[in-house]
Amino acid sequence: MRNLSMLIDFYELTMANSYFEHNKNEEAVFDLFFRSVPDEGGYAVMAGLEQAIQYIQELSFTQKDIDYLRGRNLFSEGFLNYLKDFKFTSSVYAIKEGTPIFPNEPVLTVQGPIIECQLIETMLLLTINHQSLIATKTARIVAAAKGRAVLEFGSRRAQGYDAATFGARAAYIAGAVGSSNTITDRDFQIPAIGTMAHAYVQSFDSEYDAFLAYAKTYPKDSVFLVDTYSTLGSGVPNAIKVYQDYLKPNGYTLKGIRIDSGDLTYLSKKSRELLDAAGLTNTKITVSNSLDEYLIRELVEQGAQIDAFGVGERLITSKSDSVFGGVYKLSALKENGQWVPKMKLSDNVVKTTNPGVKKLFRLFDKTTNNAIADVVTLDHETIDDTKPFLLFDPNFPWKQKQVKNFRVESLLEPIFIQGKLVYKKPLLKDIRAFHQAQMATLWDEVKRFENPHPYYVDLSQDLWKLKQQLIEQYSKKA
Amino acid sequence: MRNLSMLIDFYELTMANSYFEHNKNEEAVFDLFFRSVPDEGGYAVMAGLEQAIQYIQELSFTQKDIDYLRGRNLFSEGFLNYLKDFKFTSSVYAIKEGTPIFPNEPVLTVQGPIIECQLIETMLLLTINHQSLIATKTARIVAAAKGRAVLEFGSRRAQGYDAATFGARAAYIAGAVGSSNTITDRDFQIPAIGTMAHAYVQSFDSEYDAFLAYAKTYPKDSVFLVDTYSTLGSGVPNAIKVYQDYLKPNGYTLKGIRIDSGDLTYLSKKSRELLDAAGLTNTKITVSNSLDEYLIRELVEQGAQIDAFGVGERLITSKSDSVFGGVYKLSALKENGQWVPKMKLSDNVVKTTNPGVKKLFRLFDKTTNNAIADVVTLDHETIDDTKPFLLFDPNFPWKQKQVKNFRVESLLEPIFIQGKLVYKKPLLKDIRAFHQAQMATLWDEVKRFENPHPYYVDLSQDLWKLKQQLIEQYSKKA
Repeated sequence: MRNLSMLIDFYELTMANSYFEHNKNEEAVFDLFFRSVPDEGGYAVMAGLEQAIQYIQELSFTQKDIDYLRGRNLFSEGFLNYLKDFKFTSSVYAIKEGTPIFPNEPVLTVQGPIIECQLIETMLLLTINHQSLIATKTARIVAAAKGRAVLEFGSRRAQGYDAATFGARAAYIAGAVGSSNTITDRDFQIPAIGTMAHAYVQSFDSEYDAFLAYAKTYPKDSVFLVDTYSTLGSGVPNAIKVYQDYLKPNGYTLKGIRIDSGDLTYLSKKSRELLDAAGLTNTKITVSNSLDEYLIRELVEQGAQIDAFGVGERLITSKSDSVFGGVYKLSALKENGQWVPKMKLSDNVVKTTNPGVKKLFRLFDKTTNNAIADVVTLDHETIDDTKPFLLFDPNFPWKQKQVKNFRVESLLEPIFIQGKLVYKKPLLKDIRAFHQAQMATLWDEVKRFENPHPYYVDLSQDLWKLKQQLIEQYSKKA
Repeated sequence: MRNLSMLIDFYELTMANSYFEHNKNEEAVFDLFFRSVPDEGGYAVMAGLEQAIQYIQELSFTQKDIDYLRGRNLFSEGFLNYLKDFKFTSSVYAIKEGTPIFPNEPVLTVQGPIIECQLIETMLLLTINHQSLIATKTARIVAAAKGRAVLEFGSRRAQGYDAATFGARAAYIAGAVGSSNTITDRDFQIPAIGTMAHAYVQSFDSEYDAFLAYAKTYPKDSVFLVDTYSTLGSGVPNAIKVYQDYLKPNGYTLKGIRIDSGDLTYLSKKSRELLDAAGLTNTKITVSNSLDEYLIRELVEQGAQIDAFGVGERLITSKSDSVFGGVYKLSALKENGQWVPKMKLSDNVVKTTNPGVKKLFRLFDKTTNNAIADVVTLDHETIDDTKPFLLFDPNFPWKQKQVKNFRVESLLEPIFIQGKLVYKKPLLKDIRAFHQAQMATLWDEVKRFENPHPYYVDLSQDLWKLKQQLIEQYSKKA
């Protein structure tokens, strides 16, 4: 990754310089979490960790950066020297990419000198917010497609170059089978997919000539765009004719057709009939045209004869909800060698943060392997899965439920320990497979598009008590 | 800019290779245009041209790219050699950045060998679509703020790194006065803005201590975040106290406060009263918290005492409409030395393209300097502003209007001529000033948020006739 150390909110630098000047660089803990799932969904998907790691590994400030900062006449030479010699020494824990994640649980925590914690805030949020947004959206689209292939086709409508590239990466994690973007094939081995645009068809004297020319160049990979003039009137018939005139006599088949406009249910059904009648029962039908999970669900319900969905702008920008609202909040500060829990009170109870140095566990039913709940605990706690565990809703603590016959997993993996990378970055295809397996642990009720059942993210008794104490204490102060 | 030649839809490469193999590389003209304005607005703002130029200037394929492509077993060695030696030889015309632009007019055209035209499609669309989206959104937000400052604060919620960076650039063009993003100050001289987060306040023993510490570091730049505990109960009083205890005695003033939560109308009014009562009539009030043009309009209407709006996720992702739908369509092909106009018919009349090699003119009323209409003509036409000109609506050709007393401007500037850059890239601040001046030429009716009056984009008689002929001709074919 290129050096993005200056992609940083300016206030991180003004705060850091002020800390530095006040000789205030005690250890802190910051939690990265989000408060609600985009599209009012029941789950989100963690993504972007690999790029966040890369950013931290390469974090350094160049002479150009220092010169620019000096020119702002705000920063001390001492601080500028600190930046020049910057070395990351903090610890980072994070949930693995591909994991379903839920509101109000820490998905990443940073523990280290407060200046370091602050300096990496912007890029951590930007990286995790973006990729988790696209992974979450794609997971919904893949679910709607019910086993049919989802192709990421959005590069031209993405919000910038990285959105096209890392968006395709996130989409692949969440189940897309390939992307129109070539760079992610070169760099991430995400299969690049594509054949022809309308301009190709138009540039020949006839549609037939265009298909024939394409078939001659790619006899094994003949996928024709059939809606330039009229899908059923000319496109599919010409595709079949090129199959009969050229592909079949040369021992090839017609691999597929793509429909990019019109009523996709009707056109796909009629196209299927025409293809089948010509003996082309294995020819695949791909459709595209402003698709998203809602349209795909309807097409599937209507029995459209579609093998693959090319999904563009509504996936790559998460159009129906284009923001993943991850935040990064101080939760503890070391004072005189002791961790002091910190919390942000808010007029809005929902926005009150969880204080302290924390851990996160997921409980799975041993019989069904379904995820039962996540539990946020304080650092000294563990959950013993040989004993029954009492879950309770932090907002309604009288709502309690005892769970038995479960296994427990700790979700926050050590990534950096005191500056040293200790995490072995998995291969992208393994992240993708892991995501698929994890999705299978969620109840269908949680995965529903409309009014999904809220997945439980509970607090341990100790954490809950600490939170109540602090609320009381802070309220007195204010 | 880094090498992004492989950020290309795979079909551009398969088409290009097929053209190459068929020895088919005649000159073509492609138009980049869009069909509707985001947010159902009355105008969009052109942005991204500088990066599009940079991309084209640096377009080349590395050995790594060639090796990757060879590995796909689809491309001929001849084509791979062509890519290895690639040299851009086409001509590009485009509307200047900052200009208000309208649906169905060419905002950029490329004329050159069809392979070249095709190879640059994805990056042209991606670049112009993204920056025009953010510039358009920002122009709306700036309009709503009615002269109050708009600060771009969205980096952490942007869709990737380039979205943060080039989004801030586009926002600046459209009138934002600065950005939280530091990299755009270093690289584009867009003022980076920011002071402190809640964590800074929380990390001190008290809010007063935090403000005092900040004031000591930045006595000339003391802007305090006042809502960590209670804006009116402690934040503003502590800010005033630090002014009285430290800033005033040392000859400084309190530069500003920022409110990031709560009812911004009420809190800003009450804060203003408190500040004024303390003699701090020049202390500025900045607010932030999920703002957009609609919320800002309401705050302004309610008489909120706000000097600056920090606008984050809803600007940087254009949340209410996150896609700018630019398309890139073949409009002419040279056959035996003659331009043959091409058009894409569609079941949907609105999607039928404008054929031929074209020009674009904007007519301004000489008295008011208001933009009257844009007129798309064929290449051989000019508009003589010493004579009356007959406008007519291409969808309702009987609706006609004669205009007099106008001046005419040609909107498509030559950028590259046969591969050579002939355009002098303006300074960003000049683009910003140009945008402001151009916005003043639009009728308020066009700039309205709800049901804006459609700005006229008309066709010349000759272009209209050509289009009718082709529709007839194509319909017979199909």
